[in-house]
Amino acid sequence: MHLLLNKQKLYISLLFTLFSIISNGQPQRPNIVIFMVDDMGWQDCSLPFWKEKTSLNRQFHTPSMEKLAAEGMKFTNAYATPVCTPTRISMLTGMNAAHHRVTNWTSPLKDNPTDNSDQQFGVCSWNYNGLSPRRGIAHTVLATPLPQLLKDAGYFTVHIGKAHWGSNGTPGSSPANLGFMINVAGNAAGHPQSYLSEENYGNTVGKAGLQAVPDLQEYYGSGTFLTEALTLEALKAIEDPITRKQPFFLHLAHYAVHVPIMADKRFFQKYLNNGLDSIEAAYATLIEGMDKSLGDVMQYLKKKGVERNTIIIFMSDNGGLSNPGSRGGVRAYTHNLPLKAGKGSVYEGGIREPMIVKWPGVAKPGTTAEQYVIIEDFFPTILKMAGIKKYSTLQKIDGISFIPVLRNPDYLNNERPLLWHTPNKWIPNDGPGINYFSAIRQGKWKLIYSYRTGKAELYDLSVDIGEQNDLSKSETAQSQKMIRLLTAELKKYNAQVPVDKRTGIAVGYPK
Amino acid sequence: MHLLLNKQKLYISLLFTLFSIISNGQPQRPNIVIFMVDDMGWQDCSLPFWKEKTSLNRQFHTPSMEKLAAEGMKFTNAYATPVCTPTRISMLTGMNAAHHRVTNWTSPLKDNPTDNSDQQFGVCSWNYNGLSPRRGIAHTVLATPLPQLLKDAGYFTVHIGKAHWGSNGTPGSSPANLGFMINVAGNAAGHPQSYLSEENYGNTVGKAGLQAVPDLQEYYGSGTFLTEALTLEALKAIEDPITRKQPFFLHLAHYAVHVPIMADKRFFQKYLNNGLDSIEAAYATLIEGMDKSLGDVMQYLKKKGVERNTIIIFMSDNGGLSNPGSRGGVRAYTHNLPLKAGKGSVYEGGIREPMIVKWPGVAKPGTTAEQYVIIEDFFPTILKMAGIKKYSTLQKIDGISFIPVLRNPDYLNNERPLLWHTPNKWIPNDGPGINYFSAIRQGKWKLIYSYRTGKAELYDLSVDIGEQNDLSKSETAQSQKMIRLLTAELKKYNAQVPVDKRTGIAVGYPK
Repeated sequence: MHLLLNKQKLYISLLFTLFSIISNGQPQRPNIVIFMVDDMGWQDCSLPFWKEKTSLNRQFHTPSMEKLAAEGMKFTNAYATPVCTPTRISMLTGMNAAHHRVTNWTSPLKDNPTDNSDQQFGVCSWNYNGLSPRRGIAHTVLATPLPQLLKDAGYFTVHIGKAHWGSNGTPGSSPANLGFMINVAGNAAGHPQSYLSEENYGNTVGKAGLQAVPDLQEYYGSGTFLTEALTLEALKAIEDPITRKQPFFLHLAHYAVHVPIMADKRFFQKYLNNGLDSIEAAYATLIEGMDKSLGDVMQYLKKKGVERNTIIIFMSDNGGLSNPGSRGGVRAYTHNLPLKAGKGSVYEGGIREPMIVKWPGVAKPGTTAEQYVIIEDFFPTILKMAGIKKYSTLQKIDGISFIPVLRNPDYLNNERPLLWHTPNKWIPNDGPGINYFSAIRQGKWKLIYSYRTGKAELYDLSVDIGEQNDLSKSETAQSQKMIRLLTAELKKYNAQVPVDKRTGIAVGYPK
Repeated sequence: MHLLLNKQKLYISLLFTLFSIISNGQPQRPNIVIFMVDDMGWQDCSLPFWKEKTSLNRQFHTPSMEKLAAEGMKFTNAYATPVCTPTRISMLTGMNAAHHRVTNWTSPLKDNPTDNSDQQFGVCSWNYNGLSPRRGIAHTVLATPLPQLLKDAGYFTVHIGKAHWGSNGTPGSSPANLGFMINVAGNAAGHPQSYLSEENYGNTVGKAGLQAVPDLQEYYGSGTFLTEALTLEALKAIEDPITRKQPFFLHLAHYAVHVPIMADKRFFQKYLNNGLDSIEAAYATLIEGMDKSLGDVMQYLKKKGVERNTIIIFMSDNGGLSNPGSRGGVRAYTHNLPLKAGKGSVYEGGIREPMIVKWPGVAKPGTTAEQYVIIEDFFPTILKMAGIKKYSTLQKIDGISFIPVLRNPDYLNNERPLLWHTPNKWIPNDGPGINYFSAIRQGKWKLIYSYRTGKAELYDLSVDIGEQNDLSKSETAQSQKMIRLLTAELKKYNAQVPVDKRTGIAVGYPK
């Protein structure tokens, strides 16, 4: 009888093992939400990312970001690239922008480099058609996109909002070709024609341009602001995988807070009352509407009982817009103080982002990490979060998983260099760190290099976050070391450099 | 030892039972494809649906339809409604058009009845905003849509192509609200602005109208005809559920062969060579392109190894367009011969459809069924095919499952009445059976009733498929019986009737 009992036990144990393997395949995998904001600056929230709360922090109301930070980890040294498409492609490929060569924003029109014309430099042959998952598409970077790997591993993959990964007429213009099973409102456009349902988000007969937002017909005329409509679509899309217990990957990529800066009436009067001018008040409503969306997502996950098993990553794609030609005006290049400059710049104002990660059970609530990370790190990090260990990609991955940081907020790596590279002319008139720049950070040191002047600047970010005191003359050894490091990184990627218009000769790497 | 052996057997048997329950939940459910064509007439193919092959059958080339019929069952008496939206809503709700009251096509613009103005009748209060899954939307029919039930039961639900279930600004304009997890190119529009990628399917700046086809940016300028692009998107969408062995429901609803009649260059020259004029040749290319799509789907299912477990239902939403104002010209109302009239009419040319069902293992290959069926029958049939027995709906279902026919091509039910009802003015000038008509079929008998004249016609379809010999005067008893049946059916649904403009009084049911 004893023998029999053991056999019984054996069978029962075998049964449970099989049951567990069959029903799960592996331990339950987390849902992953990337909450991506467009053109949001480091200071555009009530959550402080600096050592002190600034007047900008007091100007904005983002209670959901505060809540997310209280439940997760705040990254104070998180970086993207200076403009949107390069960031979005780095995220989806794990490649540095110097490597994938989509170093400027892509036009909805194919074969149409967006660089402004310049007296000194020609347009280099960057990948101005964006990302392609298929071979043979001219001027694209060929790569295996992150959502494809997640989908192949059984994730239900959803893209909602701004895509902007490739030009019309190329596969990369459709999120469906990048591994997203559901796509709502994403195409080749980099901003919305209108945030207003009263204007059908741009889809009015005879007036629709390349930026008219697709797919939201049900909200036309309903008074639903674009940010709200996208949120509703996102929650709709993840309902089914939640019900079926299939892990999901949601890339909720708001068009907010990109231009056109249009007031979200739900929040407008408050900011006018607070003394903001109409443009800045409207901008603040874009921020608060985005924050409400974050709160709605968090609430929905809780309601559905998947809060504990869902990772939320909050990020912006580049620094806050601040150049004179658009939002700047008399306040040009001050919208990201204490950071220098804004969108388009390799100074901190153009690249440092408000980043938060909530990972229940892994990242300790209310923690802050000062370790620097960069957008291409999302790729290996997310695959690890999803438990995907074996995968092959067409591209070599440059990013590094930041899971060690999530597990330990004091994790420190001051050796790793971070690279930014823009051999492009983003706006007609040069601004601080804008047009034909590279930059490199290692530890507390950051070097800025201008291809136009051939000059370098060196900053100690540990005491000079505003990049005001150029130490290149006083710290010559460090400066030389950083220039060599920058050149080595650029050479590693065989990075493109501006070409002199008169001579046709490339200006060469920094020396 | 014998006891032990039995116990071992018991455990092993238990194990396998559990395994089977866990891995499947139930016996493997079939994938279901509805291949829906727009405005395709009964004769617009090389597959004959009549007792003889006609010159129209010889005019068109549809080898894939022939193949599908050889592998499945051909329905020679399959019906839809006279125009598109009513058909599409009957399919998604299981309701007769007189019941759901979407008796004409819906405008992309909300609150915009599409009826033409009339001297005699006003516009009745039909549901001109279409179908709604949510309460409180004016002028919509509230119903639980078929794909929602399939999705709730674990099906992966995909809509590709023309939707046309509700006006902009209402939930029904978005397939995502009707239970479709994926939607590509479907919105409130009833036809495409352009079939050509060279015209971005209508999405050219400043020229995009309400019919510009959304979501296909990757094909812009690529030379991909709309029908081909939709096919590629459909195959892309079902790849993942096939890989994961999740049953799928694909509603591939081509914009073809609706106006604008534009040539698909891949097939154009052949039809010109055959002597067709340029419009009819272009129309034939729309048909052949659609047929190629069907072939591509069949080939893909085979390649993926799911051919044996996939049901394909081929259908059109109304009769072939043939009125003088559009395609007709000198050939008006002859495009569906031997059937009378065309789209918009309650005569056979407006409502009889080319229908084929392939269900491996159930419907015997190469069979033909003469039993009449109607579009609302799709609802209960498909739910049964999917093994969904218990479900609740907001609406009462009028359709009847045609699975008994699929199991037995000789199945006969001559008692059931079929009803058509159009208290609307579809085109500015009345045509045969067009504007303010009802019709009823029972067995071989069909009665046509005009609200404008108050007169009825009676036909014996068994000998007069062309509805040429009105028997209402000679077969008075049968005629009276059919009128009473028609009135009873209309009363059952509390159907709307035209209202006299001068008196404001409804004309009443047929007497």
